Amino acid sequence: MQLQAEVLRRDGRRIAFVPTMGFFHEGHLSLMRIGRREADVLVVSIFVNPAQFGPEEDFDTYPRSFEKDLELSRREGVDLAFTPDKPQLYPDGYQTYVNLENLPNHLCGLSRPVFFTGVATVVAKLFNIVRPHIAVFGEKDYQQLLVIRRMVQDLDFDIEIIGAPIVREPDGLAMSSRNNYLTAQQRPAALSLYKSLNRARALVESGIHDSVRILKEVERIILAYPDTEIDYLALCDLKSLEDVKNIDRPVLMALAVKVGSTRLIDNMVLDPKC
Amino acid sequence: MQLQAEVLRRDGRRIAFVPTMGFFHEGHLSLMRIGRREADVLVVSIFVNPAQFGPEEDFDTYPRSFEKDLELSRREGVDLAFTPDKPQLYPDGYQTYVNLENLPNHLCGLSRPVFFTGVATVVAKLFNIVRPHIAVFGEKDYQQLLVIRRMVQDLDFDIEIIGAPIVREPDGLAMSSRNNYLTAQQRPAALSLYKSLNRARALVESGIHDSVRILKEVERIILAYPDTEIDYLALCDLKSLEDVKNIDRPVLMALAVKVGSTRLIDNMVLDPKC
Repeated sequence: MQLQAEVLRRDGRRIAFVPTMGFFHEGHLSLMRIGRREADVLVVSIFVNPAQFGPEEDFDTYPRSFEKDLELSRREGVDLAFTPDKPQLYPDGYQTYVNLENLPNHLCGLSRPVFFTGVATVVAKLFNIVRPHIAVFGEKDYQQLLVIRRMVQDLDFDIEIIGAPIVREPDGLAMSSRNNYLTAQQRPAALSLYKSLNRARALVESGIHDSVRILKEVERIILAYPDTEIDYLALCDLKSLEDVKNIDRPVLMALAVKVGSTRLIDNMVLDPKC
Repeated sequence: MQLQAEVLRRDGRRIAFVPTMGFFHEGHLSLMRIGRREADVLVVSIFVNPAQFGPEEDFDTYPRSFEKDLELSRREGVDLAFTPDKPQLYPDGYQTYVNLENLPNHLCGLSRPVFFTGVATVVAKLFNIVRPHIAVFGEKDYQQLLVIRRMVQDLDFDIEIIGAPIVREPDGLAMSSRNNYLTAQQRPAALSLYKSLNRARALVESGIHDSVRILKEVERIILAYPDTEIDYLALCDLKSLEDVKNIDRPVLMALAVKVGSTRLIDNMVLDPKC
């Protein structure tokens, strides 16, 4: 891959990169379409990265569909699929990690302490192997997108990062490989995330700018469903992810909710000026 | 710099890189000569990296000779001198660091807890800016060389790392910008490092392979001089830096000694087969 990238760059070809953990859905395909449009060569990686899973998390059961992913990649015009295995990326004696000091101390980083170190590390590695000019990440993982942007800026990677809008199922559920874990019975509870985000937006746009009041309403909606457990609800700054008490500018409403044993996340930008 | 590197690489030119903190001596010049020989374009960076100095260390007083360094670079055939300032490499909000888990838990890492994080971080940044094919580091900072090699392997940098032998003054003192701090009166004490390394080598080559016995003799030599304080003395594995008790293979003898307030390091590979 690294050799191919070097040759492509010397030929003046522009490389777009979409790093993934596979089990493709329309969200992944939307990232590929953006990459396809923005560059000459489209590279997708498929690697379920052990470094970003905690010991109690779902690394072993994370859904995989390798052959189908390759077929979908072909259909989207992917030129190169990079599909390393664990010993290739983390050989014996591996010991180097990329850490961010502030951004992980919010939202998902609080309940998933190794997650962003794992993400930043594997993305730095993949950037050095794939050598892209641009890379595309989904806004569903908003905090991850900020972490990658910050890492790219801080470590001086010469790569343009493009964020892509959340893709939703027809009923509004944000697309995620982990939706595969949900039973039909859990679907209404899973939809409470999107429902509560829309309610929060309506409140902000109607002139209610007190975060405490909005978060209480969001909590009420989610806990009305059985089998839901809130990890976090936050109204926070779009860049720093610090809590915002009074919504006097566009803010991120972000939330993580467990439905049964499935952890779901979603987010929306709420703009008081709308 | 990044733009120039991109153009050079597209033209098929091979880039050699020597990262430095300036205040050049023959040690630095020897690295430049190796880089000059191995590539088409020779890049030197001069940057006293604040991230690798602890709060009690000598960042403010570290010797600087910028104009003279540029003149020496020219004489050595350096094509590009990259001389960033602190806000360029560490702007407001900077928060990304490269950490190694094991190698820093030895030798200099024990008394300089932020040192190797600072080194790995700035070198990763410089690699992304200068985009070299090869980079040259001195073996005087043996642990640093191992850290860089491991980071390059772990983060998949496509860069060949070349280690260059220690350059010594005619009296045997390993060249270092910090030698500038020494008074004429302290010179004999400073020479105790090299003297004790040679004594250790003689012992090992004469068939004495018990590390405790050798380290005692080294300690005795150094402490015979006034104003010396031992930071560490170690006989350790060439790759892992773990202590070696019985010298049954080539090992690294490494030491750090304070002479007055000046901390000096030196090392030598000792081979029982010689």
